[in-house]
Amino acid sequence: MTSYQALPGGGVTSALGFTAGAVNADVKGVGAAKLDVGALRSAVPAVAAGVFTTNKVSAAPVRYSRRQLAGGEAQAVVFNSGNANACTGEQGMRDAERMAEMAAEALGVPVPLVQVASTGVIGVPLPMDRITAGIGKLTLSRDGGHQAAEAIMTTDTFAKEIAVSLPIHGRTVTVGGMAKGSGMIHPNMATMLGFLTTDAALEAEYAAHLLRRVTDSTFNMLSVDGDTSTNDTLLLLANGEAGAPLLRGGDAESDAFAAALHHVAQELTIMLARDGEGATKVIEVRARGAESIEDARRVAMAVVQSPLVKTAVYGADPNWGRIACAAGYSGAALDQDRLDVAMAGTPLLRQGTPLPFDRAVVVAAIKDTARVPIEVNLNLGRYEATSWGCDLTEGYVDINGRYTT
Amino acid sequence: MTSYQALPGGGVTSALGFTAGAVNADVKGVGAAKLDVGALRSAVPAVAAGVFTTNKVSAAPVRYSRRQLAGGEAQAVVFNSGNANACTGEQGMRDAERMAEMAAEALGVPVPLVQVASTGVIGVPLPMDRITAGIGKLTLSRDGGHQAAEAIMTTDTFAKEIAVSLPIHGRTVTVGGMAKGSGMIHPNMATMLGFLTTDAALEAEYAAHLLRRVTDSTFNMLSVDGDTSTNDTLLLLANGEAGAPLLRGGDAESDAFAAALHHVAQELTIMLARDGEGATKVIEVRARGAESIEDARRVAMAVVQSPLVKTAVYGADPNWGRIACAAGYSGAALDQDRLDVAMAGTPLLRQGTPLPFDRAVVVAAIKDTARVPIEVNLNLGRYEATSWGCDLTEGYVDINGRYTT
Repeated sequence: MTSYQALPGGGVTSALGFTAGAVNADVKGVGAAKLDVGALRSAVPAVAAGVFTTNKVSAAPVRYSRRQLAGGEAQAVVFNSGNANACTGEQGMRDAERMAEMAAEALGVPVPLVQVASTGVIGVPLPMDRITAGIGKLTLSRDGGHQAAEAIMTTDTFAKEIAVSLPIHGRTVTVGGMAKGSGMIHPNMATMLGFLTTDAALEAEYAAHLLRRVTDSTFNMLSVDGDTSTNDTLLLLANGEAGAPLLRGGDAESDAFAAALHHVAQELTIMLARDGEGATKVIEVRARGAESIEDARRVAMAVVQSPLVKTAVYGADPNWGRIACAAGYSGAALDQDRLDVAMAGTPLLRQGTPLPFDRAVVVAAIKDTARVPIEVNLNLGRYEATSWGCDLTEGYVDINGRYTT
Repeated sequence: MTSYQALPGGGVTSALGFTAGAVNADVKGVGAAKLDVGALRSAVPAVAAGVFTTNKVSAAPVRYSRRQLAGGEAQAVVFNSGNANACTGEQGMRDAERMAEMAAEALGVPVPLVQVASTGVIGVPLPMDRITAGIGKLTLSRDGGHQAAEAIMTTDTFAKEIAVSLPIHGRTVTVGGMAKGSGMIHPNMATMLGFLTTDAALEAEYAAHLLRRVTDSTFNMLSVDGDTSTNDTLLLLANGEAGAPLLRGGDAESDAFAAALHHVAQELTIMLARDGEGATKVIEVRARGAESIEDARRVAMAVVQSPLVKTAVYGADPNWGRIACAAGYSGAALDQDRLDVAMAGTPLLRQGTPLPFDRAVVVAAIKDTARVPIEVNLNLGRYEATSWGCDLTEGYVDINGRYTT
C-alpha cells in the first residue's frame, strides 16, 4: 500500500521553498544554444545528505562538495554541464570553490551551504569567465525546475524529473527530483547527477541513512556500461517547509516518506536506464531466493551488466543460458541444480533443467515491451534485489567509438 | 634472455609422443562440413594439471574432468565443438562419462586417464549417436595437431596453435599448445579451451603450480567481454618423452621451461584477443607501479574490460580520461595526483595532469597498429601486470545480438 501520489509535471521545485533556474553560458565554447549553467536553492538552510562516486579518480566538484557537506546542511546547488572539472589539478579545486563563491553571492546564500556539481568533458579547465557570467545571469523561480533538469543534460535525450506528494501527520509533504546521464558519456566521460528535494523535515542522521539505503536499491542497481564515473553525485535536500513534524525513522510516517523517496529514486533510475546510450529497451532483473542481500544484488547486477545478456535482449533472444552463466560468475552462492530463470514472463529454466517453451511467443513478448523483465531464482534463501540496465546496441558503439573529442 | 625458439607450424603434437586427429561428426546436426570431434593422445600416461572455470554454473565435462584429474595423470583428451553439454542435468554427466569410455576404447587408454571437453550451445543434450560414431572414426597421428585445433573452433576465425623448443640438460624439450574461442560466443555461449603439451618430465605438484602461475598472468588476464563461461578448461600434459631429467622447480632448467610455457600461453592468449568477437584491434594494458600484484592486475583488467576504453580504441581516440577513470574504479590503491597514462607510446597524463600532445599523431599511431599498447603507472609501488583484450565494435553487437539460436 502506497500513500504517495504522482504530481504530473513535477520535479525538483515541486516541494515548497525550492526554486531553480538555468542559463546558456556556452560552457563548451562552441556557441550551442543549450542551457548549461543552473542552480537550485532552498528558501531556508536544508538538512542535506550526499552520495558521491566511489571512483578514486574523483572530480574537483565532488571533492569540494563532499567536504562542504560534512556539516549536514546546504541551501543551494550550482551546476554546469559541458565540462566535468575532472583531472584538472589544483586549478580545478580553485574553480570549484570559485563557482560556490559566485553562486553564494548571486543567490544570497552562505558559501559553506553551496554544493557544486559538474558534468561533461574531463581534463579541460572550466571556462571560468563564461561560468561566472552565467551564474551572474541566473534567475530562480518555482517554475525553473524543468530548466534546471535541462541544464544538467549532456547526451541525455530527455530531461528526467518526477515528484510525488504524501500526507505526513496531516500535512502534505512533497518529494521531487531530477537526474541526468547514466553511464559514461560522449565525448570523454560524464556522470550520474541526481538531486532530490523535499519539504519534509528530516533529522540529519536519518536523512543520510535513508539516502544511502534508497541509493543502494535504486541508483546503485543501475548499470549502463559498468563504468563508474569520476563525477557521480546524488544530493538530498530536506528543508522542512511543509511544516510537518521532524522525521527520525522508526515510525509509520517515516516509512511512508521513505517509500515515497524510494519511488522517486527508482523512477529516476528507470529513466536513466531508458536513456542509456544507444538503448532501445530497459532490462529489469529481479534476483530472488538468495542467501543474502549482497548475493541478490551480485546476481542482479551481473546479469544486467553482461554484454551477452544485453545483446540477447537487443536481439529479442530468450537466451537463458547467458542469464544462468552470468548468475554463475556473479560470486553469489548458487547451486546450478536449483536455478530458475524466466524472461519476459516465460519460465525457461527450472531447477537447473531447460523447460520447453514456444520460442516465437517469447521473442514476440520481448519485442513488444519497452522494459524486459528477467527473473532469476536461486532457491536458496529469502533475499531479493532488482537491477536496471539497457540493451547493448550498435548505437552504443557508435556514440562512444565513432565520435571523438 | 630466452632459451626457447619457435617451431614454425608447430602445435599440440610437436612434442614427442603426442598424436591427435579429428573428424566431422555433424554435432550440430545441420550437415556442416566442419571438423567437430577430435582427440589428443600421449603415447604414455602423462603428468596432467588443469585449470577450470570458476563459474558456479559449470558444464558436465568440466565437472567430470576436474574429478578425473584429481590423480594428476592423463593420457588422452576427447573433445567436441558445436555443443557445450552445459545445463544438461544428469544426462549431461552420463554423456560426458560415455564420451570418455568411448574414447578410452577407441584410443586404447584407461578410462580414468581420459579428459573430456565440450564447447558450443548450452542446454541441449549431446547427440550421442553422432558423437559416438565420430569417436569411432578417429585416426590420430603426429600430423593431426592442426586438425585438432580446427575441431575445437566455434566462431573462431582461425586455428590457434604454437610450439617452441628449448634445451634442458642437453635434451631438446618441446612445448606446444592450441586454444579456441575467447569470450562467450554465438549462438548461446562458448568457452575458452586450451591444451598444452610437452615432452618434458614434470613433477606433478610442480606442473599444477606452474600451470596456475602461468595462467594467472596469461589466460586469466584476457577479457573479450567480461563473461566467464561455463566450460573454460585449460589442460597441461607432460609425458617426459624427451628423456630430460624431471623438473621440480627451483632451478635454472625449471625456470627456462617455465619461461617457454609462459610464452606459449601468452601467445595463445594474444591470438584469442585478436580473434575476439568483432575485434579489429588487440588492446594490451600494462599496469605498473602498483602496491601489490593484485592491484596491478585489477587496474590492467579494469582498463582492458572498460566498454568506454574498448570503444575509444575502436574509434582511435586517445581518450586518457576513460583509462584513468577505469583505473580509478578498479579497486586498486590509487592516488590520482600521481597517475601516469600513455597510449600507443605517447604520454597523455603525468602525475595526474594532462600533457599537451599532438592528437593527429596519436590517432595515426592507434590506427596504424594491430596491438594498441596502453600504459598506466600508479607510481605507488613495484608491482606490474599486463592484460589483453580487444576493441568493442558493431561487429560484437551484430554477432551476439542479431544472430539468434
